[in-house]
Amino acid sequence: MKILIIGAAGMLGRKLVQSLIFKGKMNGQPIEALILADIFEPERPDFAGAVETIAADLSLAGIAERLIESRPDLICHLAAVVSGEAEADFEKGYSVNLDGTRALFEAIRLAGQKKPYCPKVVFTSSIVVFGEPLPDIIGDSHCLTPLTSYGTQKAIGELLLADYSRRGFLDGIGIRLPTISIRPGKPNKAASGFFSSILREPLIGQEAVLPVSETVRHWFASPRAAVRFIVHAAELDTQRLGSRRSITMPGLAATVGDQIEALRRVAGDAAAKLIRHEPNKAIADIIAGWPRSFDANRAKELGFIAETSFDEIIRVHIEDELESTLPVHEQA
Amino acid sequence: MKILIIGAAGMLGRKLVQSLIFKGKMNGQPIEALILADIFEPERPDFAGAVETIAADLSLAGIAERLIESRPDLICHLAAVVSGEAEADFEKGYSVNLDGTRALFEAIRLAGQKKPYCPKVVFTSSIVVFGEPLPDIIGDSHCLTPLTSYGTQKAIGELLLADYSRRGFLDGIGIRLPTISIRPGKPNKAASGFFSSILREPLIGQEAVLPVSETVRHWFASPRAAVRFIVHAAELDTQRLGSRRSITMPGLAATVGDQIEALRRVAGDAAAKLIRHEPNKAIADIIAGWPRSFDANRAKELGFIAETSFDEIIRVHIEDELESTLPVHEQA
Repeated sequence: MKILIIGAAGMLGRKLVQSLIFKGKMNGQPIEALILADIFEPERPDFAGAVETIAADLSLAGIAERLIESRPDLICHLAAVVSGEAEADFEKGYSVNLDGTRALFEAIRLAGQKKPYCPKVVFTSSIVVFGEPLPDIIGDSHCLTPLTSYGTQKAIGELLLADYSRRGFLDGIGIRLPTISIRPGKPNKAASGFFSSILREPLIGQEAVLPVSETVRHWFASPRAAVRFIVHAAELDTQRLGSRRSITMPGLAATVGDQIEALRRVAGDAAAKLIRHEPNKAIADIIAGWPRSFDANRAKELGFIAETSFDEIIRVHIEDELESTLPVHEQA
Repeated sequence: MKILIIGAAGMLGRKLVQSLIFKGKMNGQPIEALILADIFEPERPDFAGAVETIAADLSLAGIAERLIESRPDLICHLAAVVSGEAEADFEKGYSVNLDGTRALFEAIRLAGQKKPYCPKVVFTSSIVVFGEPLPDIIGDSHCLTPLTSYGTQKAIGELLLADYSRRGFLDGIGIRLPTISIRPGKPNKAASGFFSSILREPLIGQEAVLPVSETVRHWFASPRAAVRFIVHAAELDTQRLGSRRSITMPGLAATVGDQIEALRRVAGDAAAKLIRHEPNKAIADIIAGWPRSFDANRAKELGFIAETSFDEIIRVHIEDELESTLPVHEQA
């Protein structure tokens, strides 16, 4: 089988490629070819089958047609202008996140008019399709009320995915990813950045800033779990979804205090002491509009599995990003 | 104040124009100019102020800019390719209902970049943004799950309206209209057509066909109530909406049996006997996916008012469409 990954150079994209290569098969069928696309040409992975790497801006005319030219069986569409950028640059956000996604779906539909074609499409949405006012635990039938342009664009992507699937143009599944923690890499300026940095930096002996109260509650999964969600979605029989093609992924509802306690248990007091509390009202106000917890019953029934404690999420990070070693201040 | 109505030649558009002319003011401000646009040039109404009538396809380049050139204070966007046509012609539906709506919002945003401009925009959505699986009574926080391309396009319009409003580009309010009954005019082939024709035709002594069971329940408002919703939305202070800019309108939850009993009470047994039951599985299957009833609490709190009985809906039709007279078979 042939797999196209759009957004293959991003954090999740790279981990997904590694996971697919390691797995070697999807639903029992050998993976024969990978087409890896991103705005910058993705790195060429070490893979025995065919690999094509493409630098491509999905929002430009003709690009979507080019990407699906060889009629991949599975398309994982992870590419997006992220939340902060889509808010700062309104036109760019709509162009990439809405027009780009629609261009992909349209290219698939039009290819199917020439010769039957109905690929499986996994679309990564996000829990930021939900915004206040919200109940403490959000059920699977709660309305989408995004409070950012990014969330709006993801919600529209979900609606298009459902309609194109209903019409038989593609076989879509949308997965709403929790906030990813611990995101590897450098600290960034995203409002959500501290959810990762207050763990990631102390784990390597560096200071981190906490801009909100320890009582703030949010919904998390590790990068490893997120990749597992994508793979599970790609293998799932969409007959089981009915008309509702997008699903809130399971996650761990945890407060910042829970995160810090887990850090203390895994890496000791010295690590926890590296977190400096510096309240920032602007960030606190943004976070206040975000969802806190979900029941995610549909996803659980469909076999999606997340972590159940932050200790586990931290251990996943130590295994996957720190070569299973903690620096000197590790305890016991 | 200057008012632009897009879709002014349609059934609701024409009634809205008459209602605005009769009213003369909006929120105490005199209505000075009407710009009436539709795919065919709307009829010129009898109005003391300025009137412009325009034949315009909103989905074509430059048209939206042209329509808002004179910077109307209020824009009522009622234009749409209807449900059946959007299902039969996928590209036309997306072009008019999605691209046309987005072109309008974009034209407003770009006009505002040149010189401050933030008109009130009333967008008519529809209860077909909801589809099975559904609870018997649908609450205001239930997710949108359209089962038609038309419903998908309306749901996307709602999301865009909310995002453009949040960003301050326009001041939007979306109203989800119930199924309109009794829709005046000739019988048509819409799946929902019988909800009007089983009353409209017998009221003038003609036969009508009922393709579903009398137990089918649905959500209704008269054309007069629908126009009242639009006017109330146009006058409503959107501060009261918070971030949720679209609202399910109140209506009357009634079964086909309730409709027939009301017909019998208002126009007699002879009228009710003109309904011929001819089961049609295709229509019954479509209707089975439709919403049955809503609580519509938000709309009621915001002062939107619908009919409370089908007797009243039938009387509205007799007053507005039949010059307050029933034909010879009228009782008592």
